[in-house]
Amino acid sequence: MTHQTRLYVPAITPFKADMSVDIERFVAHSRLLLADGADGLACFGTTSEANSMSVAERMKALDALIEGGISPSRLIPGTGCAALPDTIALTRHALDHGVLGTLTLPPFYYKPISDDGHFAAYARVIEAVGSEDLRLYLYHIPQMSGVPITLSVIERLLKAYPRTIAGLKDSSGNWDNTAAVIAAFPQLATYSASESLLVKNVAAGGAGCISASANVNVRGIMALIRGLGGPDEAALLEQVSTIRKIFEGIPLIPGIKATVARGLNDPAYAIVRPPFVSLPASFDAVIAAAAQLCFGGRQHA
Amino acid sequence: MTHQTRLYVPAITPFKADMSVDIERFVAHSRLLLADGADGLACFGTTSEANSMSVAERMKALDALIEGGISPSRLIPGTGCAALPDTIALTRHALDHGVLGTLTLPPFYYKPISDDGHFAAYARVIEAVGSEDLRLYLYHIPQMSGVPITLSVIERLLKAYPRTIAGLKDSSGNWDNTAAVIAAFPQLATYSASESLLVKNVAAGGAGCISASANVNVRGIMALIRGLGGPDEAALLEQVSTIRKIFEGIPLIPGIKATVARGLNDPAYAIVRPPFVSLPASFDAVIAAAAQLCFGGRQHA
Repeated sequence: MTHQTRLYVPAITPFKADMSVDIERFVAHSRLLLADGADGLACFGTTSEANSMSVAERMKALDALIEGGISPSRLIPGTGCAALPDTIALTRHALDHGVLGTLTLPPFYYKPISDDGHFAAYARVIEAVGSEDLRLYLYHIPQMSGVPITLSVIERLLKAYPRTIAGLKDSSGNWDNTAAVIAAFPQLATYSASESLLVKNVAAGGAGCISASANVNVRGIMALIRGLGGPDEAALLEQVSTIRKIFEGIPLIPGIKATVARGLNDPAYAIVRPPFVSLPASFDAVIAAAAQLCFGGRQHA
Repeated sequence: MTHQTRLYVPAITPFKADMSVDIERFVAHSRLLLADGADGLACFGTTSEANSMSVAERMKALDALIEGGISPSRLIPGTGCAALPDTIALTRHALDHGVLGTLTLPPFYYKPISDDGHFAAYARVIEAVGSEDLRLYLYHIPQMSGVPITLSVIERLLKAYPRTIAGLKDSSGNWDNTAAVIAAFPQLATYSASESLLVKNVAAGGAGCISASANVNVRGIMALIRGLGGPDEAALLEQVSTIRKIFEGIPLIPGIKATVARGLNDPAYAIVRPPFVSLPASFDAVIAAAAQLCFGGRQHA
């Protein structure tokens, strides 16, 4: 099965100094990502600090995106929480908005969990939401969730809910796992979490990437997608990989936010919620360099 | 500093077949634990499946306990969530009820977190609650939270909030860590997570235990506490350790709930929420034996 190659951005969630959600900047930055050419937003992902937000905050922010003119057909919001009632509430709310799909973590406090428990948790969400329209993307990020989504769990879910289970994001960083998922379940839209893996992902039959660093480099990654299989592929891949590597060497989420702040000349974008802290000044030079690479040619509004 | 030796029970949260909280059984079982002699309840802990419950469910269940006649002065509810707004809301709600303290997990999705971020997270909760009456117990359970509470973080928190930081529960199972915490911070009420460690805990200057298996063995553990330093100490310790070991060999939370169900002859107590699943029938014999040991002499109502 062939998938169109897509870039979804796990859009950052800006906060105000008082730690409330900065809705205005959230909508403005999200629109910018789409204006730059991203296929859509996987908002409320890990990079979005969504797991530091309450259910009410996440709902209100999604409402604001859509009221701000962003089509729900371009949104795959994160909806997975530690507690299933929260996951169900967020998934239902997103679906009521007509989103393209939801990117849904398994419950991530208790570990290890059995395959039976893992299946039961996703089944509970799907049954409780109870809609033929749900397209659920599994979110495999064991280094945060502590709960890997095994091939066996995917197989059971696909057998029980073939229409609903639409895809998977593999944030493990383990290419062998991504390749195994794509090979076993070609019907799933399987995304890598890094643009550095985009060429491999697409060659293997994957669907593209959902990458933190897309928050600062939509244009570069979209250029790579357009150039896939063409004469510039290697050069375009090297370009995005160079930028990606900067963020792999620093605290990722504060680093992305600091680069947006620097690139847009708006320091408020750098604010993070605990347990994150803002980058110390020792990172100023690397952030300046990253911002120059990503935002250098941009006209400020 | 000498602490009175206490047993707080991380009371199980019964659920109905439709997965809603079974308030009636929750209150009944909690009252039974206190009637059996427990000093208090560390309700909404890990064993309570509290991290599988929404904020609203947790608040409602706490309200019900207190409306059910349980004194808030005997309660140390768990209040720590992945998202700080939830932690703040639960901590404030518990404090408004006049609870003895709160047992508060650090935010547990993002990992690793820096000591600065860890401190900032607890500081944010304490400042947001903003009450001199808050007595916060740190909850160290790295195998679930993924976020160990280091000695350095404890030291910083105690320096900044000496009145507020009241204690710590060490669920790591690593006695060396418990001993190091007690030695470094004797003013903290430091609890072990197993009655098997009770004698060591108290001898080192700790404050007792908050143990999952207390849900089925308050009377045994209280007998050990009364017998500490006496001629029967070793025998009493062996008695509780024998029961404890049963649960260390099976899925802990489903096993505790199944034993309560069997011991009270009320199958509804065995219901768990995903990601847990009920014990398969292959565990029937071990659960029957555990129930006999724990509930054998009890008169059913």
